[in-house]
This record gives sequence, C-alpha cells and structure tokens, in this order.
Amino acid sequence: MLKIGLLGCGRIGQVHARSIKALDAATVTAVADALPEAAEALASATGAEVRTAEAILASDDVDAVVIGTPTDTHFDLIQGAARAGKAIFCEKPIDMSVDNIRACIEVVDASGVIFMTGFNRRFDPNFAYLRDRIAAGDVGVLELVTITSRDPAPPPISYIERSGGLFRDMMIHDFDMARFLMGEEFVRLHAVGSSLVDPAIGAVGDVDTAAVILTTAGGRICQISNSRRAAYGYDQRIEVHGEGGMLRAENLLETTVELATGSGFRRSPALHFFLERYEAAYLSEMRAFVEAVADGTAPDPGIRDGLQAQILADAATLARETGEPVDIPPS
Amino acid sequence: MLKIGLLGCGRIGQVHARSIKALDAATVTAVADALPEAAEALASATGAEVRTAEAILASDDVDAVVIGTPTDTHFDLIQGAARAGKAIFCEKPIDMSVDNIRACIEVVDASGVIFMTGFNRRFDPNFAYLRDRIAAGDVGVLELVTITSRDPAPPPISYIERSGGLFRDMMIHDFDMARFLMGEEFVRLHAVGSSLVDPAIGAVGDVDTAAVILTTAGGRICQISNSRRAAYGYDQRIEVHGEGGMLRAENLLETTVELATGSGFRRSPALHFFLERYEAAYLSEMRAFVEAVADGTAPDPGIRDGLQAQILADAATLARETGEPVDIPPS
Amino acid sequence: MLKIGLLGCGRIGQVHARSIKALDAATVTAVADALPEAAEALASATGAEVRTAEAILASDDVDAVVIGTPTDTHFDLIQGAARAGKAIFCEKPIDMSVDNIRACIEVVDASGVIFMTGFNRRFDPNFAYLRDRIAAGDVGVLELVTITSRDPAPPPISYIERSGGLFRDMMIHDFDMARFLMGEEFVRLHAVGSSLVDPAIGAVGDVDTAAVILTTAGGRICQISNSRRAAYGYDQRIEVHGEGGMLRAENLLETTVELATGSGFRRSPALHFFLERYEAAYLSEMRAFVEAVADGTAPDPGIRDGLQAQILADAATLARETGEPVDIPPS
Amino acid sequence: MLKIGLLGCGRIGQVHARSIKALDAATVTAVADALPEAAEALASATGAEVRTAEAILASDDVDAVVIGTPTDTHFDLIQGAARAGKAIFCEKPIDMSVDNIRACIEVVDASGVIFMTGFNRRFDPNFAYLRDRIAAGDVGVLELVTITSRDPAPPPISYIERSGGLFRDMMIHDFDMARFLMGEEFVRLHAVGSSLVDPAIGAVGDVDTAAVILTTAGGRICQISNSRRAAYGYDQRIEVHGEGGMLRAENLLETTVELATGSGFRRSPALHFFLERYEAAYLSEMRAFVEAVADGTAPDPGIRDGLQAQILADAATLARETGEPVDIPPS
Repeated sequence: MLKIGLLGCGRIGQVHARSIKALDAATVTAVADALPEAAEALASATGAEVRTAEAILASDDVDAVVIGTPTDTHFDLIQGAARAGKAIFCEKPIDMSVDNIRACIEVVDASGVIFMTGFNRRFDPNFAYLRDRIAAGDVGVLELVTITSRDPAPPPISYIERSGGLFRDMMIHDFDMARFLMGEEFVRLHAVGSSLVDPAIGAVGDVDTAAVILTTAGGRICQISNSRRAAYGYDQRIEVHGEGGMLRAENLLETTVELATGSGFRRSPALHFFLERYEAAYLSEMRAFVEAVADGTAPDPGIRDGLQAQILADAATLARETGEPVDIPPS
Repeated sequence: MLKIGLLGCGRIGQVHARSIKALDAATVTAVADALPEAAEALASATGAEVRTAEAILASDDVDAVVIGTPTDTHFDLIQGAARAGKAIFCEKPIDMSVDNIRACIEVVDASGVIFMTGFNRRFDPNFAYLRDRIAAGDVGVLELVTITSRDPAPPPISYIERSGGLFRDMMIHDFDMARFLMGEEFVRLHAVGSSLVDPAIGAVGDVDTAAVILTTAGGRICQISNSRRAAYGYDQRIEVHGEGGMLRAENLLETTVELATGSGFRRSPALHFFLERYEAAYLSEMRAFVEAVADGTAPDPGIRDGLQAQILADAATLARETGEPVDIPPS
Repeated sequence: MLKIGLLGCGRIGQVHARSIKALDAATVTAVADALPEAAEALASATGAEVRTAEAILASDDVDAVVIGTPTDTHFDLIQGAARAGKAIFCEKPIDMSVDNIRACIEVVDASGVIFMTGFNRRFDPNFAYLRDRIAAGDVGVLELVTITSRDPAPPPISYIERSGGLFRDMMIHDFDMARFLMGEEFVRLHAVGSSLVDPAIGAVGDVDTAAVILTTAGGRICQISNSRRAAYGYDQRIEVHGEGGMLRAENLLETTVELATGSGFRRSPALHFFLERYEAAYLSEMRAFVEAVADGTAPDPGIRDGLQAQILADAATLARETGEPVDIPPS
Repeated sequence: MLKIGLLGCGRIGQVHARSIKALDAATVTAVADALPEAAEALASATGAEVRTAEAILASDDVDAVVIGTPTDTHFDLIQGAARAGKAIFCEKPIDMSVDNIRACIEVVDASGVIFMTGFNRRFDPNFAYLRDRIAAGDVGVLELVTITSRDPAPPPISYIERSGGLFRDMMIHDFDMARFLMGEEFVRLHAVGSSLVDPAIGAVGDVDTAAVILTTAGGRICQISNSRRAAYGYDQRIEVHGEGGMLRAENLLETTVELATGSGFRRSPALHFFLERYEAAYLSEMRAFVEAVADGTAPDPGIRDGLQAQILADAATLARETGEPVDIPPS
C-alpha cells in the first residue's frame, strides 16, 4: 500500500485524490493546502490528515507526494521531496523556467527518486490505444501528425495573465502528445497565433487561436492547432499518417443517441471539458504512478518529458512573437 | 446495339429512358404511352419515334421492350411481347394476381424470351456489395436479416386505393431483397400493420406502418419494417447477421458535411426519395438487362422472382388482415 | 446513510457492492451468500459483516436489502424482507412464476415497503437520454420501436437449462425497455425463434435466435430481435420512430480510434458484455434506489414492471412454442 | 445551345466532354489534340469534328473553348481565344508564370470575354454546401480552417519533374479552396515539406509530404497538409471553425456498407481518386461555365482566382526551399 501525501487540494488535487481512492494499492495519508478549508474538505473526503507541506515532506508515513499546487511552488517542493527520498508525481508544467526544470532534474537524478510528470492525455484509453497501434506498426513509420485541441471556452483573464500564455498553458499538452506519438525529437518549429475569441486575451499579450508546425530531423511533420473556443464541447482529436494509412481518435460524445429529423441526423455534443473527457485518463495515470513506485521503474512520462515539452512551448511562444521559425537545440 | 421499345412514358419510363441513353450498347427506338404528350416528350428527349404499344410489339426494329405502364396492363403486354419474341424488362409488380403471373411464366417459358423483373434495389451499389460480401462468406451463413424501408411521405390516397396495399406496393421490394439476401425460401410469415401516419389510409383499408417476420425451413429469420413516413428522408437500410458478424448498409446522405454546435453534431438528411437514392441502381439494372439480352443469359431477378415476391406480399396482406401467421406453400 | 444488506455475493452482487461503495449516501452493512468464501470476499472488499440471509432480514442496522441471489430464492426473501419492513431492490426476474410475483406484490403493497426491480438498462445514460427525448416530444408519438439485443456468446448449457429460456432470461430486458419507451401496454405478441448458434441449445428446448413483434391497442408496433451471438461485441441498440423522425442509440465502442488502410476504415469492437456496457447504468440504478428510499417515493421500475415483463416473456415463450400469436390480458 | 471547341483530348478533356454531353444547353462542336488518335477518339464519342487548335479559334461555329492542353500551351491559346472573342474555360494552373497570367488578364480584360478557371473542387456538392453554410452564418466568422488533401499514390517521376512541384501542382487546389472559404486574402505563409513517400521525388527536388500555415491580415489562420500517399483512398477533407462551431466535410466512401467482426466495425475505403471523387463536381463546374456564358456574367472562379492561387503556390515553394515564411504582396 503506497502512502501518498497530497500537496494542493484544488481542482486537480481532488481529481487525483479520487483516483487514489479508487486504487487498491495506494492511500492518501496526508493532505496540504494553503487554504485550510480546502485541505480540511479533502482530508474528510479521503480520511487523510491535514498537515503542512513541510510536515508531509518530513513524514515517515508518506512514501510519495502528488504535487498539484500552483506552478511557482513546484520547484521548492520537488527539491524538498527529492531530498526526502519521496517518489514524486508532479503536475505539468514542472516549472515555467527551463533552467529551473534542469535544476530539478539534477536533484531528482542525484536522489534517485521516481518522478512522473502529469501529462494525463498519454493515459487516455483512446490515445493510448492509438499509440499502441502505431507501435504495433499498423500504419508504419509516421509521416504526418495532426493534433486538434480546443477548449470549450476561455478561462478568466486573471488566469490567462498568470498562465505563461497559450503555448505554455494549453499547447504544452499537445507538444507532449506530439513527442509521445512521433518518437523522434523535433528540431524546428513555426508558430502563428491570434486573438480572435476575446480581444481581452490579446490585450494581455496572449493569443486564443494558434497553429504550429513542428519538423523532425528526418523531415517528419506535426501540425497542432489550438483554440480557446469550441461551441460543441471539448475538442480533442489526433490523426496520424504513415505509409500503411491513417489512425485517428475522434471525440467522445455525451451520448450515443442520434436524432433524425427534417434537418438531418444530430448526435450529442462532445464531452464538455477535461474533467469529463479525461476522467479515465486521470485514474489510469495515477495507477501507472503507483505501479512505477511499487516496481521501482522509471515512469513514463518522466521529468525529461516535462523539460522537452517546456522547451517546445518556449520556442512556440518566441516563434509566435517574432513571426519567425525557431530551431530547437538538442537537449 | 440493342433496340428498345419503351412502353409507358411516366416517371419510371423516363428513368429507364435516361439509363438507356447513358448506355453505349442500347438505344430507345420507339416509345408508347396512353397520354400522347407524355410519349411525345420522351420521344423528343431520346430521339425515338412515338408508336402505339401494339405497333412496338410488331416492330422489326425493336429487340426488347421495357414495360413501365400501369400494373393492370402488364399481363397483355407481357403475353404480346413474349409471343413477338421480344426480350422483356417489366416493372414490379408483374401483376397483382399470382395466377396471372403464373400464366405469364408459361408464355415466357414457351417463347424462350429473356425476362427481367424490375427489382431495382438489387442493383443499388451498396446492397449489391453487401450481397457480394455475404456470398464471399464475410459473416458466414445468415441467421437474422433486418430490413428497414420508410418512404419520406405517403402517396396520395388515390394512389393508395389502386396500389394493392402497402405489402404489395411497397414491402414487395423488401420481400425480394429478403429472398435475394437469404438465399433460402421463406415458409412462414407473421405480419402486423396499422394506420398511424394518416387515418385516410386506414379508411380505405390499407396500413401505413407495418412489421413482418419471415422464417425459412431452416429456422433463419427476417424482420421487415415499413412506414409511409420518415421526416429525415428516404430510409433504406439493411442489416444481416451470421456467425462471423454483421454486415449493414446505411442510408446515403445528401452531403458529407457535418455541423457541430452547442446542440451537437448534425449531418445532412438522407437522400429524399427513390429517384435520388436509386439513381445508380436504375442505371446498373438497365445495363444488366442489356447485357443479359446480348449474352442470351437468364437475367437476375427473373420472372419467378417476381412471382415469389408477389406470393409473399399476398401472404402478408392476408396475415395482417386475419392477425394470424400464414404458411407459404412451396411453388 | 442508507444501511444495506446484500443478499447474494456472486457476479451481480459484486457489481451492486461496487456501486454502493461509490455512493456517498449508502453503505453495505452486511452480506450473505450460500458460499461462505463468496460472502467473506465481498465482506472484506466492502468492510461489511458476513451474516445469514435470515439474520440480515432481522437486523436492526439494515434498512434495505439488495437481492442478487438465484431466482428461485427471491420469493422467500422478498416476503421476508417486506414483512421486516426493509426496502427491497430485487434483480430481474422477480420470479419465474407470474403467480408468485402477484403474491409478492400483495405482501409488498401490504407492508408498504419501497420495491425496485433491477432492470438496469433503463439507467443506461444513452437509453435514459433517448427516453427523455421521447418525453420531450423530439419525434412525437411513437409509431415503431426496434430493439436489437445480442450477447457476444452463449452462456454454458447448464445455465441455459435453468434460465427459463431466452425470452425469460434475455429478452425480458427488452420487454421492459419496450414498455419503458412506448408508454402504452402491449396487447398482442408474435414470436419466432430458432437454435442456430448452438444445436445443444435447441437440444434442451431453448432457442438462441429470436424475433418478436408486439402491438398496442392503438396499433403501435415494437420489433425485438435477440441472439446469443455477436462476433463484434455486446450489441445493444434501440431505434424509435414517430411523426417527427427517429431517435436511435448506437453501441458503445471500446475506443474512438479508427484505422484507415487499403481495406477501409475500421473502428473498435463494441464493449464486450454487460459488465462493461452497463457499468454506468448499474451505478445510476443503485443511486436511484438509494434516493427513492431516502425520499420515500416509489421507484421506477417498480414491482409491477417486473410482473409485466414476465407476462410478456411467458407469452413470447408460448407464442414461439405454438407458432401462434398470443393476446396479452390486461393486468 | 453553346457550341464548344475542346482543346486537349487527354484525361481531363475527356472528363469535360462527358460533362458537356450531359448538359442540354451545350455541345462539343470541334476537338483538337496534338495526338491525332486522341482527337479522333473524342470526336467519335461526342459527334464533334477534329480540327487544329488554330482552326477552332478561327471557327465561327465555336462560341467557347475549353482548354485542357499541357500547361505550357495555355498562354498562347488564351491569348488567341480572347482575341477571337471566344469564352474561355481554362484548366488550372493557368500558367506557371505569374507574369504570364498577368499578361493573360490584360488580354482577357481588354477583349471582355468570359473566363473561368478550372478549380473543380469549388463545385463539389459537399464543399459547395459547406461554403453555403458558412455564407449562411452557421458558424460565424471563420477563425481557423484546416484542409487535408492526400493523393492515393504519387504520379510517375516524369510527371513530377514537369509539374512545377507539389505546391504548384497539388496544393494549388487547396490554396484556391482556402481563399474560397476564408473570404479574406492571405498575407503571410509558412511552409514545410519533405520527401518521405519516395526518395526519387526528393531526388528531383520536390517534396511529397507538406504542411502550410496561411494567415490573413485579420489574424485568421488556415492549415493545409498534403501527401502523395493515402492507403485508404483519395483523402479530401475540410474543417472550418468559427464562433458558432465547426463545419466539416468528410470523405466519400465507396459504399455505405459496414462489416462488424471480432476486429471491429469496418467501412469501405474512400473513393479512389479525383475522377471518382469529383465526378459530380466536374459536371457542376461545366454547367456553371455554360450558364455564365449564357448569362454574360463573370464566372466564379475567374482568372484572378487563378492568379492568386499561383501566387500562393509560388510563395509556398519559396518558403519551403528557404525554410522561412513569406509575405504575400497585395495584388
């Protein structure tokens, strides 16, 4: 039974708590949050104790930490947890600074602790199956990957301002997915972006609609498009092409019911947002973390995957601002 | 070049004229219709001569006739054409009386002329492909067949009154399709029917909504449902099950375009009615007739297929009226 | 917090235990099973005590019972539970004898306890949504309902022998669904059935492939087909037609991934069987039971729904054996 | 009756001849081709006379010319036809040189003849309907357009060498479609491309896999991807997003038949290539030309649409070669 300390009791912390509760091999021992009520609520729901983050890192009855706190606290918590020998699950992004992530890698490597980065989409059953079919050779070597990712509606401007921008906040998931699927690092990136959904987003220097092209040294191509708006629900699609054909994952709809009338055949909207769409992914992700700790194996995605996605997000941000493509240095 | 005399210049005659025009190996030599204007119009569109039906049967420059006149004229025209040695394509139903059809079979057999019954749906590319896949063994021996057939809207009551009833006018196509797919004759039939679409249909003794179950001696089952109403367009679907799985043919929609909004994903309605839905089938059907005449081979469906479908339609009519199942005698 | 005694710790008992565990408003207090190991296993998984069924009925700390024992034990348990004033959730079928069900109704009515029949499919989110759309008038008054229900593979012959036959064991779910959707009782029923999947099923007097037509006094029609075989997974589809058009619920597939190659576009098989397909339905069903008890309202489906479905199953069994339609008496 | 002279009797000339034959308001009067046999064959199929191109331009019984000759002959034929006062339908590309197209525009404008550019895809019923829905405001102002265009297999290297490269030969259709849908000119273009399908294509300096991003002055974005390979048939899809949602056009499949087995649900491949996929589009395109000449209205797409697409194709070629984005000058 893996004893977990949960750092951060907000929305994503609650998701992970629910996943841990559903697993037989793990339990939440302690929780911490800057807001006492949030910590109390999650403690009561899980049967865990409320402690401070520092106390959790120092607790003998905590084997692993799940970090779901604000991004700017990750650096210290990772360092502390690694030094305390705790296995670490950390939400994306690990840190807004690539240098900071590199510093974390040093400490994590030195301590030898298990570290998993929270790119939940790798664990979506549909995307995971699509990746398995690529690995099984169903379409041969990939030539072109197209990723579509659209939120149903933009977050508040206050969130946008602290988010690091669309490429670091939203497209980072797609950068990780692109790497996960392609299996070859990207060397060059073109990016465009506009504020078409809400001028207020443009006013704070961010974009809400964006497209990126990534290429590998071998000339393989990935297209990514993002938007902060999709009237029909959370749009999460992947399409990959190789010599043998195409694999694509469509959206999950609210129901399988179709209504046929004089205006045609109408199916349900897509599942509304990430909590609905990735419910199974979050559970599977946490199970993978618990199993990796139990087995002592390096989890996938690891800390270097967090670094690579951040490098791509930084490059895209720069490319969009300058209007020029950016070369990605080997890391 | 097969020289064809077209008997009947109404809607279905015009369809066949268009098909013949598109074929390289056939031409319309002469046309006949009780309405002079109808005959003139089709003659002008095809470059054919207007003659009387009798003159066409007696014409040396006519190798084959396509009979698209009212059903109650079929009997005499078939007899005349067979005796004149013309190849015959006759619209369904051959005749409302099974005895009359048997009499036609005798004359046709005695004369040795080619005879094809106009069950156009066998030539729909989708249904024909489905049938090919059954023959190729994709799903093994059929166990259950489900046929759905719904018109977009009921015909005028004046048409209903002369139609012989839903089972003879509409479901006869499905009876032929059931035989075409199953490849084993049916021995027993249950039928129910109601007037739910328009009480006027019930008032003239007919039904507008019906369901039938057919069984073979081997216990294999076919379900058919019909309705004179489908808000979303002409509904023509087939589904067959065997040990290996299912084959099903879906409707053809007006376009491939899908609109996704807050109310979901909406595709186009089905093609409106039989002229749109079976345009390719009518052409393919006429090509098959022309080729059968050229090759001197027995066409499929032949005159006995017309008889068998009529026997099933009669049985269904009786079964619906009495509320009791009907045994189908071997013919 | 509703304290539940679980009678029967087999497959379906375990499903219900898992559902109760996931609900905040209920808990499993005690479990009973004829097999001590089964009871122990479920007790340990739920934190409940092992007791005898009799002890559970007599327990003050048990408010409600969930009956998932073999069908022939339901009668005594229902009687006992009703007399003990416990709310009752009972798996379908309530009893193989319609007379016994009527006797249960008397006792349940007399005791005034809450009684819910376990027709889980009413709680499938897709079917429930389809029903809601009917109620909202999306297609108007129903004219024709088509229900397709196919198991992936037949159960063991030993199960078949004790099952009461396909109509009572399998199609009973579809009879309840037909009533649920149509909202008008059926008055007449035609049934055919064959043993095409496995001759051993025929050898014990049962069928594995069947079709039924039901009609209401108003002439509305329902078609049901069942098979013990579906190579492509558990096939559970519904299609309803009214003046305004069609509503249909398609199968849930294993993934949303499509593979496109030279042989076409291939999507995943349907979810394998009822545990996968109806996982959400079972949870929703148990939540409805717990809420009904909390609110003191009559649950839907109630004990009379169990009776009506059994009456239809008996009628279908008779109709299939005699080859003649059966009139359903008003109850 | 519009009397048409057909210049070029190759594959595309034959397509246009077939379309004209199906139209009531036009006829092929004369045909010309550098290969006498090609001209003879098409003359015999259409009932037209064989003449030289020069003779056709000088013929009084020719009102309009359809130019389907090799691209490097277009310039002289357009100049000659315009000076002769013939209406002109010219296959894309008008000319490989933007300067030559500008010279043609001058002559065409001066002569006042009708000129239509052969961008057939605008007339595909699905894409035309999608465009109509945009115009009707179904999704509001477009924010993001994604066009996918993949040939089933690469053409011979000899064709590639003379083609002007993928962007001018293949993606030019998508550039026109992007302009057609977006309704605002593009101002900047990023392009990447690789030779992944066949190294021989790379060896002659071309690419077989490419992705492009276009942006308008208003920040609206279009993604295009092309490949010379698609195992599952000709892949022609469009997806557009606006505030109100998404419109997308899927591929046309060979049949509507689906096979369900243990390996899942399999539909037919996409229609093989452009002759099958765009059969209806070619007919509709020629009808639009004939109607434009009859009405004396400017056809859509006109000669400036041919110019704009060529400008984008040139820009993409340059952008791909240099690896840098290219600004599109206003024209």
